[in-house]
Amino acid sequence: MAGSSFGTIFRVTTWGESHGRGLGVVIDGCPAGLPLCGEDIRKFLDRRKPGQSGYSTSRKEDDAVEILSGIFEGRTTGTPVSLAVFNKDQRSKDYSEIASCYRPGHADYTFDRKYGFRDYRGGGRSSGRETIGRVAAGAVAVKLLNRLGITFLTYTKSIGPVCIRPQNYDPAQIGQNPFYMPDREAAEEAGRYLDACMADGNSAGGVVECVVSGLPAGLGEPVFDKLDAGLAKAVMSIGAVKGFEIGDGFEAAGATGRENNDAFEIRDGAVAKKTNHAGGILGGISDGSDLILRAAIKPTPSIASAQQTVSRAGEEITLSIRGRHDPVIVPRAVVVVESMAALTIADALLANVCSRMDALEMFYAGRQRR
Amino acid sequence: MAGSSFGTIFRVTTWGESHGRGLGVVIDGCPAGLPLCGEDIRKFLDRRKPGQSGYSTSRKEDDAVEILSGIFEGRTTGTPVSLAVFNKDQRSKDYSEIASCYRPGHADYTFDRKYGFRDYRGGGRSSGRETIGRVAAGAVAVKLLNRLGITFLTYTKSIGPVCIRPQNYDPAQIGQNPFYMPDREAAEEAGRYLDACMADGNSAGGVVECVVSGLPAGLGEPVFDKLDAGLAKAVMSIGAVKGFEIGDGFEAAGATGRENNDAFEIRDGAVAKKTNHAGGILGGISDGSDLILRAAIKPTPSIASAQQTVSRAGEEITLSIRGRHDPVIVPRAVVVVESMAALTIADALLANVCSRMDALEMFYAGRQRR
Amino acid sequence: MAGSSFGTIFRVTTWGESHGRGLGVVIDGCPAGLPLCGEDIRKFLDRRKPGQSGYSTSRKEDDAVEILSGIFEGRTTGTPVSLAVFNKDQRSKDYSEIASCYRPGHADYTFDRKYGFRDYRGGGRSSGRETIGRVAAGAVAVKLLNRLGITFLTYTKSIGPVCIRPQNYDPAQIGQNPFYMPDREAAEEAGRYLDACMADGNSAGGVVECVVSGLPAGLGEPVFDKLDAGLAKAVMSIGAVKGFEIGDGFEAAGATGRENNDAFEIRDGAVAKKTNHAGGILGGISDGSDLILRAAIKPTPSIASAQQTVSRAGEEITLSIRGRHDPVIVPRAVVVVESMAALTIADALLANVCSRMDALEMFYAGRQRR
Amino acid sequence: MAGSSFGTIFRVTTWGESHGRGLGVVIDGCPAGLPLCGEDIRKFLDRRKPGQSGYSTSRKEDDAVEILSGIFEGRTTGTPVSLAVFNKDQRSKDYSEIASCYRPGHADYTFDRKYGFRDYRGGGRSSGRETIGRVAAGAVAVKLLNRLGITFLTYTKSIGPVCIRPQNYDPAQIGQNPFYMPDREAAEEAGRYLDACMADGNSAGGVVECVVSGLPAGLGEPVFDKLDAGLAKAVMSIGAVKGFEIGDGFEAAGATGRENNDAFEIRDGAVAKKTNHAGGILGGISDGSDLILRAAIKPTPSIASAQQTVSRAGEEITLSIRGRHDPVIVPRAVVVVESMAALTIADALLANVCSRMDALEMFYAGRQRR
Repeated sequence: MAGSSFGTIFRVTTWGESHGRGLGVVIDGCPAGLPLCGEDIRKFLDRRKPGQSGYSTSRKEDDAVEILSGIFEGRTTGTPVSLAVFNKDQRSKDYSEIASCYRPGHADYTFDRKYGFRDYRGGGRSSGRETIGRVAAGAVAVKLLNRLGITFLTYTKSIGPVCIRPQNYDPAQIGQNPFYMPDREAAEEAGRYLDACMADGNSAGGVVECVVSGLPAGLGEPVFDKLDAGLAKAVMSIGAVKGFEIGDGFEAAGATGRENNDAFEIRDGAVAKKTNHAGGILGGISDGSDLILRAAIKPTPSIASAQQTVSRAGEEITLSIRGRHDPVIVPRAVVVVESMAALTIADALLANVCSRMDALEMFYAGRQRR
Repeated sequence: MAGSSFGTIFRVTTWGESHGRGLGVVIDGCPAGLPLCGEDIRKFLDRRKPGQSGYSTSRKEDDAVEILSGIFEGRTTGTPVSLAVFNKDQRSKDYSEIASCYRPGHADYTFDRKYGFRDYRGGGRSSGRETIGRVAAGAVAVKLLNRLGITFLTYTKSIGPVCIRPQNYDPAQIGQNPFYMPDREAAEEAGRYLDACMADGNSAGGVVECVVSGLPAGLGEPVFDKLDAGLAKAVMSIGAVKGFEIGDGFEAAGATGRENNDAFEIRDGAVAKKTNHAGGILGGISDGSDLILRAAIKPTPSIASAQQTVSRAGEEITLSIRGRHDPVIVPRAVVVVESMAALTIADALLANVCSRMDALEMFYAGRQRR
Repeated sequence: MAGSSFGTIFRVTTWGESHGRGLGVVIDGCPAGLPLCGEDIRKFLDRRKPGQSGYSTSRKEDDAVEILSGIFEGRTTGTPVSLAVFNKDQRSKDYSEIASCYRPGHADYTFDRKYGFRDYRGGGRSSGRETIGRVAAGAVAVKLLNRLGITFLTYTKSIGPVCIRPQNYDPAQIGQNPFYMPDREAAEEAGRYLDACMADGNSAGGVVECVVSGLPAGLGEPVFDKLDAGLAKAVMSIGAVKGFEIGDGFEAAGATGRENNDAFEIRDGAVAKKTNHAGGILGGISDGSDLILRAAIKPTPSIASAQQTVSRAGEEITLSIRGRHDPVIVPRAVVVVESMAALTIADALLANVCSRMDALEMFYAGRQRR
Repeated sequence: MAGSSFGTIFRVTTWGESHGRGLGVVIDGCPAGLPLCGEDIRKFLDRRKPGQSGYSTSRKEDDAVEILSGIFEGRTTGTPVSLAVFNKDQRSKDYSEIASCYRPGHADYTFDRKYGFRDYRGGGRSSGRETIGRVAAGAVAVKLLNRLGITFLTYTKSIGPVCIRPQNYDPAQIGQNPFYMPDREAAEEAGRYLDACMADGNSAGGVVECVVSGLPAGLGEPVFDKLDAGLAKAVMSIGAVKGFEIGDGFEAAGATGRENNDAFEIRDGAVAKKTNHAGGILGGISDGSDLILRAAIKPTPSIASAQQTVSRAGEEITLSIRGRHDPVIVPRAVVVVESMAALTIADALLANVCSRMDALEMFYAGRQRR
């Protein structure tokens, strides 16, 4: 079934495989009049680029995005914005290894069971390159949200056992280390940890945290389309994500009600919360505080060590994955988590415009006068 | 925007408020020919009933479900199954407290901001009673899945700081204690912990775990409609859930690839995994192993202790919530988590039938002969 | 698959069978703050009631609607509005005839082929009583649209060969005759035609026309979700409708461009069209003129005359349908067509609010100040 | 709002403007294992190509389609099939006329009202070139349906006042004349009629008819997602279509029940209908007979004659559209109607697989054994 679309009003549809002709996304439902250019998208795609440090693959993925539709005189027209990144290098490679066996931790086996066969070239549709479409669309969503005063701060919270420390927290550091960590010390420690992993033919996972500021209260729909439910789906749909939290998350499960409840107060003449254990959402609806979410990302499944597995033909074999692979994908996932959060919020923001008769009446009264 | 529907092929739509006329659900897209009776649904609703122990409210919620449509001669007809639970007791109560202020940890404030006003009677649409529709529909989904050999085991993993211990794990205990814990010792400990909470005017949260067995490989769609993404949305849409995990979840983020990868082997002539850190899903698609998920549930926000908050009129006040409230909602959430998981899986199971041309050709070839 | 929902933002889901427990609809996505009471809905349901003249069945369908959720203090709350009509009389009748054979022109055969069996009591889900949910929801949509200055005029244009004449056209007549015809003479003629049909054990069809005034320009989305495409689906989904037209419809196919193009002019300081062959829609988007649509309704398939058909068991038989049936359903379909048009327009109206950045910025700027 | 997607299980999303970088479509949900190559699509696109006779524009639209994803080793993989046609010629032209005024019968005015501005180059998104995505996707749907024994016969039924005659009906003629008419005489007459139109600076419309054979009974969902309702939306969403009929359509409205009912009989051991006034659909569900539908297409709005209109600036002006335009678009719309019908049927065909428990049980029983 169609599973490559996300969102209802602001809806994106991605396509493409790792080693095919290219990858892209169609953004349908973006309001007309948003200034948008290739540079807006390129900046986002650069954040997911590998080869930027010794800790990610040295493959050159010089992904140039092309805007194929939906922009006129520098602004969105209200019709679909089609974005594509064409693969530069489609030389036939030797895929016999990946074609003939099931790599542990990968989707080779499940794709074969579901579809009967699979495009095994570079992982096909289940490759990390699939996120190009998400990030290109995320750039547009972030641009839209920025204009409404909503901003994102996303970073690596931990890599393997190395976690940022509150006392070291410094957002200015995020762009200063290859791991997007807001803690210089932790970043250095993470580097040493990853060196050891690589030397051992092993890999690491980690946690990404995203803080969204400036959200108006009222986003999200009660019951099934709660804002946090939508965010959970968005973030869990990223390959390798195994857990999701909002606010205090699993820690809240161990706290008491008195600890966990956020008291309301009047601040600057408006209702506000004294604390934010809730992570900016009450009853599935944004409450005007910072929205805080976290994603747990598993260690890269492609490791140099020998692994037990089975071949497509049904024989037990030992597999040693050749080539170079990222010992950790967490840093490259930072912008993907931010993109998925932005897509979810953009859709909720548009949906919320229709919540009240008074706003509707005001909107159409204004239209008639034009 | 419409946010009270869940699912695409097997789609449920719930309605109703805590202290209104009643609550219900319309299940649309259930295949024809599933045997179904009121007793199937009553058993599920009983699992979410309060008043079954000293640890949940002594309110009498004798919720009798009525089947309003979609069943004929004991089987589903393929048309919408409408289920309703009518509130027995709609006497006008004194809601002035909840009407005039914003209870910490509740949705009072966000509903007011979104809609301009709210049905404050008993929490309205954001009350825990909203889950009646989920559970009634979940009963139907579980019945359907059972016929295909898919079974659920759902239980409380922890309450506050009290967690079940692997060495004590005994599923037979689940129905033997008021907390649905598969560990007698832990259940007794949890009882003592909750006694202390109540004595202190406080409350607790906890973690629910759900294990699904017998799932065929192949469920879930690549990219946005991954099975785990759908489950995340389903479970996070339950009020009070703040975190979601699949398989090892957040622990996977701290593990290495060698630890976390599940090796494949041949078992009983078929491909199987030696371990199940993945929790039964690879690349968003079920792999035939047990599916394992967890939900973190925050402590009950309604506590007897005095709390700081603000009134609708914008004044800072001190609130002491009267009446009796569950010191923990985790045990009652067990069946809600199971229901949401079942709804997600039923939808994915139906969607998957259309994945391959060979199955499609076989289906319609068979039809023509009938 | 789930097929009982209509709309995206303003979404309705109907349930119920002719002779089951009852029928109803859940309206999800209705903006908060719309004044609504049972009387609003009853007025609409009365328009589809049979037994109001000698030309429709004398069955007593005294359908009292109950509002089960979504209204508080006389206004919609933004959460689902659940409406139900319970069947008064569920005595077991003799359904052996309809159960054992396939009535020509009915859905008996196709339901059996699709689902393997069917609820044959009174036609089950394919009975005309299914429209109760549509009309109840339509009443809400019309109420909403009325507040924005959008009004509906719907009537019977023809019955069998009898068509209203332009020179006799008088909207005041619509409520004055049992056929809802805006032409007294034509109504009398139609009465005579139907008398003859009935005497002959035969039945008639006809055409319903709906004119929507006060629509703002801009409703409808380019390409697949054009306003006229949505209206076509809405109206064609009514049982017995075999054709749909917008504006000049099939006549436009025979006209020349010069005849069919509507010239623009400036009227009262605004852009307007001199003529309205287009029926109020250009490129799938409302243009501010009256929207005009028509539905072709086939003759009632239940006739007294003997008909050739086959039994469920596969034998050719002669069927004479007993009991009294409407010789024409066109007059009762008038309010159903209006309801479906209103549901479509309400959804398009809400969708359109998100078309432009400037409106979005204004909306959220306003929110922040509150 | 997102309005460029069609279908639920088999879902297509189109993008692109007339004179932009290109146009394309993403087909999501196509089952895995369907053989597909560029030639399959090219054949369909050729049928909508202009410049094939003196009666359509001599513009050279040599549209080469590129398959960007979703195909591996000549078969669909189950992941999105992305197809694109890049515009060869994007030279800047003089668009001042179309930019500054509202052409009668076009969407210039409504786009401006909806979005505040528009991409006026060649009509932008509302150009007939938008159908490239529909037809490319339609080619895939028809390929899929053909494998299940479902075939399409689509042709021009009338042009202006010239209609094919039953006694001349010969499908072999369809490909032999520039109008795709199954009647040589009518085609010649239509040619003469169009010559006269062109000489007079005028244009014509017409009717397209589509007959689908080999459909299994059971497609379509009761109530809102009836097969004919879906087809109506699909076909009415094509620019310039003003009316839609199924079976006898508007003629049925004038017939009696005895005339219009199709008697059932046993033919070749199976239930069949003696006649087919219903056009292959009963109660919204296919009945196994030929499905017959018709679309009324308005005359080309771009005519050489002077027309009254207004400028963007709000002044009344006289417009004479320069350049060459098709005097009739009906022949080019034939393949578009067929494509939209095929997309609708493919989606309904996939949805129907989930209608019954017995089929579901058989499907998953088979899976387990694999």
